[in-house]
Parts: sequence; C-alpha cells; structure tokens
Amino acid sequence: MGSTLIVLNLKTYLEGTGEGAVKMAQACMNVAESAGVMIGIAPQFPDIYRVASQVDIPVFSQHLDGVGAGGFTGHAFAQSIKDAGAIGTLINHSERRLTLLDIDASITSAKGAGLTTIVCTNNIATTAAAAALTPDYVAIELPELIGSGIPISKAEPEVVTGSVDAVKKINPAVKVLCGAGIKKGEDMKAALHLGSVGVLLASGIVKAKDPKAALEDLVSLI
Amino acid sequence: MGSTLIVLNLKTYLEGTGEGAVKMAQACMNVAESAGVMIGIAPQFPDIYRVASQVDIPVFSQHLDGVGAGGFTGHAFAQSIKDAGAIGTLINHSERRLTLLDIDASITSAKGAGLTTIVCTNNIATTAAAAALTPDYVAIELPELIGSGIPISKAEPEVVTGSVDAVKKINPAVKVLCGAGIKKGEDMKAALHLGSVGVLLASGIVKAKDPKAALEDLVSLI
Amino acid sequence: MGSTLIVLNLKTYLEGTGEGAVKMAQACMNVAESAGVMIGIAPQFPDIYRVASQVDIPVFSQHLDGVGAGGFTGHAFAQSIKDAGAIGTLINHSERRLTLLDIDASITSAKGAGLTTIVCTNNIATTAAAAALTPDYVAIELPELIGSGIPISKAEPEVVTGSVDAVKKINPAVKVLCGAGIKKGEDMKAALHLGSVGVLLASGIVKAKDPKAALEDLVSLI
Amino acid sequence: MGSTLIVLNLKTYLEGTGEGAVKMAQACMNVAESAGVMIGIAPQFPDIYRVASQVDIPVFSQHLDGVGAGGFTGHAFAQSIKDAGAIGTLINHSERRLTLLDIDASITSAKGAGLTTIVCTNNIATTAAAAALTPDYVAIELPELIGSGIPISKAEPEVVTGSVDAVKKINPAVKVLCGAGIKKGEDMKAALHLGSVGVLLASGIVKAKDPKAALEDLVSLI
Repeated sequence: MGSTLIVLNLKTYLEGTGEGAVKMAQACMNVAESAGVMIGIAPQFPDIYRVASQVDIPVFSQHLDGVGAGGFTGHAFAQSIKDAGAIGTLINHSERRLTLLDIDASITSAKGAGLTTIVCTNNIATTAAAAALTPDYVAIELPELIGSGIPISKAEPEVVTGSVDAVKKINPAVKVLCGAGIKKGEDMKAALHLGSVGVLLASGIVKAKDPKAALEDLVSLI
Repeated sequence: MGSTLIVLNLKTYLEGTGEGAVKMAQACMNVAESAGVMIGIAPQFPDIYRVASQVDIPVFSQHLDGVGAGGFTGHAFAQSIKDAGAIGTLINHSERRLTLLDIDASITSAKGAGLTTIVCTNNIATTAAAAALTPDYVAIELPELIGSGIPISKAEPEVVTGSVDAVKKINPAVKVLCGAGIKKGEDMKAALHLGSVGVLLASGIVKAKDPKAALEDLVSLI
Repeated sequence: MGSTLIVLNLKTYLEGTGEGAVKMAQACMNVAESAGVMIGIAPQFPDIYRVASQVDIPVFSQHLDGVGAGGFTGHAFAQSIKDAGAIGTLINHSERRLTLLDIDASITSAKGAGLTTIVCTNNIATTAAAAALTPDYVAIELPELIGSGIPISKAEPEVVTGSVDAVKKINPAVKVLCGAGIKKGEDMKAALHLGSVGVLLASGIVKAKDPKAALEDLVSLI
Repeated sequence: MGSTLIVLNLKTYLEGTGEGAVKMAQACMNVAESAGVMIGIAPQFPDIYRVASQVDIPVFSQHLDGVGAGGFTGHAFAQSIKDAGAIGTLINHSERRLTLLDIDASITSAKGAGLTTIVCTNNIATTAAAAALTPDYVAIELPELIGSGIPISKAEPEVVTGSVDAVKKINPAVKVLCGAGIKKGEDMKAALHLGSVGVLLASGIVKAKDPKAALEDLVSLI
C-alpha cells in the first residue's frame, strides 16, 4: 500500500448506524484489500467499539474534544476514543466546527493518546492556519459542495492546488486530503493529480445503492 | 423496586473509561440488586455499547443532539445511542449546556427513539422552564456544588423543594432528581425527603477508593 | 395608546445601519404618533446611542448577554445597553440563540438594569418554557417563515393561539408577540385577533421601497 | 510617533461604561499626545459612537462577527462598527473565542470595511495559525495571566519571543502585540524588548485608582 488514504465518514446516516456501520466497514476492508489502498472509516461515537472489534480497518472518530480526564460530561475524550479501538480522528468537520483554541487542544489531546489527526478546513487561508498547528493531515472541503455530487477536484481544482502549496510553505510534513462531492474514480484520480494524498467522503458512498461497488469505482483509476 | 432512581455519571474520569466503565456498571448492578433500588449508569459515548452488552443495567448517554439521520458529523444521534443499548440520556448537563431550542429538539429526538430523558438545570426558574418541555425527569444541580462534596440537600434544600413545587405546577408528570455534592446515605435520604425521586451523581462514587462500598453507603438509608 | 406593541428589528440590514437606523426610527416615531400605537425599534449595538439620543422612540437592543461588570470582552452588557438609551432588549432571537441558562441570566440582568425583556421562541413548547422564566414578553416566530413574506398569522395561526394558551397557564403576566413574515395591515390585525398583543418584524418594513408607507399600512387596520 | 501600539480594552468594566468610556478615552488621548505613543481604546459596542465622536483617538471594537448585511440579529457587523467611528477591532479575545472559520470571516469582513484587525491567541501554535490568516496584528495573551497582575513579559518571556519568531516565518508583515498582566512601565519596556510592537491591556489601567497616572507609568520607559 502506498500513502494514499481514503476516509469514509458515516455521519449520522441510518445506513451507517449500528450494524450498518459494521457492514460499511466490511465493504471498505474488502475493497481496500483487493485494491491495495488504505481505506479508513469514521463511524458515530457509539459505533467505534463495535466496528473496531469486528472489522480490521483503520477507525477514525468523527470528532474529538480537547479535554482531559475529569468533569467533562458529554465530551469526546481522546483516551475513550482510543480505548474503543480508533486510530485517529477528524477534527473541525464542516458540521462540527471548533474554535481555533479547541482545534489546537484537540490535536494535542489526540497526539497524547497516539491518535492520527485530520483537521477539516474550508479554504486556502484556514488550511494554512490549520497546518501551522501541525496535525497529520488537513482535509480541505468546500462546504457548499458537501453532499452536492459536484467534486471539488472538478469545480475548484485551484483550491486544492492552492491548499497543497500553502501547506508546503507552512509545514511540509502535513499531508493534504480533499473532499466534498467526491464519488467516482475520475474524481479520486483528479484529487491525487492535484497534489492531495487522498480523499474524505461520505454520502457518495454511504447513500449509494451498492456502497461496495461505489468504492470499487472510486479506487478503479488509482 | 420502587420508583427511586440513581444515575451515576462517569464523565471522562479515567476510572470510568473503557473497561473501567464496565467495572463501574457491575458495581452498580450488584448494589442495585441487593438494595432493591434502580441504579443507572451514564458512560462516555464510545463505552455505551460495551457496557450495555456486558452488564444488565439501565445505560444512559451523557448527552444527545436533537438531530436526525443525515449530515451531522460528530453529533450524538438518538438512533445510534439507542442501537448501542442505551435506554435514556442526560440532556443539558452543566458541562454540556444547550440552547433552549436544542433541549426541546433533543427531548423530541430521544422520545422518538424511545429513550428516557433527564434534563439538567441549575435553579428553580430553569427547572420550571425545562418541565414545560415535558421530559421524563429534570435534575436540578447547583453548578458550584458539583464535585464539591457539599450536598445540595444540605447546602440548599430550598432549591430542591422549590424545584419540586415549581415542576408540580407546570407539569406534575415530570419527576425531579437532584444532584451536586451527593455522596453519602444521609444525602440520599435527605434528597428523597425533600421531594425528589432520586439523585444524579459522579465523583463522589467514581473517585471513591471503593466505588461499590460508596454505593452501598449511598443506598443504606433508603 | 393601548398596549399594542410593534417592534422593528433592523438586524444588520444596510438600510438600517448608522444614519439609516436614525431614519428608520424617525419613520417609526411619525407613524406611531399619528396612529396612536407604540412602535419600538431594535438597531444594532453601535447605533443604540445614536438612535436613542436623536429620536424619541422606545429603543431595544437586539441581544443581551447575561453578564455583569468585569472581564467580558465583546459581550452585550445590560448597563451599557441601558446607558446608551435602550429601554429593553430582544433575547434569544432566531439568529442569536442562547442556552436555557443564558436566557435566564439575560432576563435577570435586563431586569436588574430596568430593561423590558422580549424572549423569542420557535414553537409552543419553547414558548411555554420561556414564559416560565417570567420575561415581560415572549415573541413566537417560526424560523422557516422569517423573511419569507408568508405571515405566521395566516400560515400557522394555531401556533399563535396555542402559544397564547400555553403562556396563560404558565404565567398570565407574560404578554405574547408574534412574528415572521408579518408585513401588511391584515397580518397585524390577524395577529391581534389570535391573542397576541403585537408583532416583531424586520425585512417586510426595512426592505420596503418606502418603509414609512409600509408602516402606515401595517397599523391601518388596528 | 513610532509604530508602538497600546490598546486599552475596557471590557464590561463599569469604570469604562458609558460616560466612563469617554473619560478613559480622554486619559488615553492626553497620555498618547504627551508621550508620543499611539494609544487606542476598545469600548463596548454601544459606546463606540459616543467615544469616537467625542475623543480624537483610535477606537477599536472588542469583537466583530464575520457577517454581511442581512439577517444577523445581535451580531457585530463591520459596516456598523465602522460607521460608528471605529478604525479597527479585536477578534477572538480570550473572553470571546471564535471558530477558526469565523476568525477568517471576521478578518475578511473587517478588511472589507477598512478596519485594522488584531487577532488574540493563547500560545505559540495558535499565534502561528492566526498569522496565516494575515491579520494586521496578533496579540498573544496567556489566559491564566489575564487580570492576574503578573505580566507575560516576566512570567513567560519565551512565549512572546517564540510567537514573534513563529509569526516572522509565516508572515513577516503581521505585527505582534502581547498582553495579560501588563501594567507598569517595566512590563511595557520588556514587551517591546522581546520583539512585540506593543501591548493589549485592561484591568491594570481601568481598575487603577488613577488610570491616567497608570498610563503615564506604562509609557514612561519607552
């Protein structure tokens, strides 16, 4: 496997809730193995343990609070996420934005627990800012394209290349993912061609008639 | 068992994370059986499935977002909480406050999934307001006493009786819990004597040298 | 003048910013005088002083934080709002929602400074809850109708009557306003007929070609 | 006048509310003139117009929302802040933290209205991130020292120099202020010596027995 990374975000889709999350993870695992690509999955908090204990696939949390052990009712605590079997986490997703300070605290907490960090951003400026916080990955997504079916790699390729360039200047160790509207093999190919190392995606796969077939199409041109 | 309810909130305490949550739940179950009292537990999101599938005890989520299925990354979705094995949820805990609208939406979502609702409040006025939203329980807690070891039933008994009276006028079907600083059997007894039907507690048990012994003390005077 | 109240919310409309706010206030004052109705205005924070010192009209803040004097940078402090000349404040507007606790704190702060309180809500349940906090007014607005031009009094009259009934049961001293989509005299008449004592409105007047004429139409059937 | 900048944040201190804000501004203006230093003032929103129209001093808003004209009730809109007489704004103050996206949107809105931007941060990493968003200034403040009387320049000088270095690498056009606990002439001198171009301060002056004398001490060693 190269360093290409695909992360499937299950959001709160019913198709990816509970046993559905386990089935989606199995589809990801099967396609990852046959295509030789790393595919991770981000189920809801309560499904992390179930997925991680049943399917051999990198599991990400959808969110992580930068809090420690103690009086933090209802928070997503790094140690708990890690204990449940996750190996990483999304941070600052478009549907769960954080303050600048909480992004920094979340990255620090995740690193302390040995979790890989993917910080989501919405334009070149915020991507550069996120890179300055030294996460493992930044994932640039245009909020208006999320769930639209219009891939960022086609609609706004210069945002991807601009993000890749900006991150290189700030911190070349940070890898760039892109997302929003990505679904097909050509979108994935374009994303890699623009300098990103992979994609973050959701509805294009989760809501597909046959998610496994959709994943196979996605990786077909890598 | 009567209608007395004790809910142990594990917050993000390390002692109640992962396998620790399972052990705390076993202690609760043992004490509940021998004392004939209902004791529920509120573990972190990722531990709900693990606790609910291993221990026969009412499991509550620490928080619930009033969102449906769809694009809600990093949210606590009622169906997912329910699928993982929870029977209810805390809402608006002192460490996870919500807007008035989100409390209402969270109650509606929880009811739709068949989950019992406990809305936390901080004074008589907000308790009355919460009761108007028709949850199953309101839990009055004085934030300044949380984790203090000073029980609300001793420090501010009139807040408990005032809350019980206010709720009765607004909606007599809503039951009142109280919390903050509760730890000992006499605190529990006082809480019931003041008109509440039970308690919400955390550090007094979770951080005790011997949580099971602490629980036994708690229920000893009921 | 009876007890009918109209409050014109200027939001951040350019037409109601700076000198525009003063002009809108003059139009309100002129119409209020000739029609014998109380018309208040809610300009942006920086325009409160300018409007209140130049036009003799009840001025409301668009928002108030429940904070005291001290370390609260960037907050809307009751004493400052009052000193600038406001006589009341909106709280929890659809575009500036607050936690249940902050609504309660905001009402308490406003009352301490002698400010009239109008708490905005979105359905019958949250209206009842808000009434339990004993503000002077609750203003029920359906968020989906705000700015739509479809008046709540026509689209969902039962939400207005249901709110009036719910408030009466909780606290008959609290008066009910309604809003969202209100623009014409018949909407205003219908709002009063449904049991509210007035309306909260914005774009229907502020964005009208001739705001003064629009206000004259609004009050023409009272 | 050189490029040294002092910004006095009045927060919600009663001493700096209403007419108090005007008096504080006059003290700042007098000291600025005799010492040949630029001193700006950040009053509460409702006091911007009053201060700016009465005292010839650079006025900053304490906060700015990155919203445009339209349906944004209770928000701090750049055009309104500008119209009231401000020349700049604090963004993301410790007591008014914003999401990464809102900081970016606030900077963009402020620039569009011709306002100078000062983004507050809490450590070297977030300072670097803020600099990537190209504000005019970043102001590094350690939250635990705010209001403490212990100056950052003495307690944590390496945070100031580290911030100056990090900003230089990201964007040398961004100037660095520091704050928290600054009060005396020696603190000010140390702040400049560490590479910052000025300070952000509040209680040390506002709560002083004689604010003007305190300001004179502050600038005495420049």
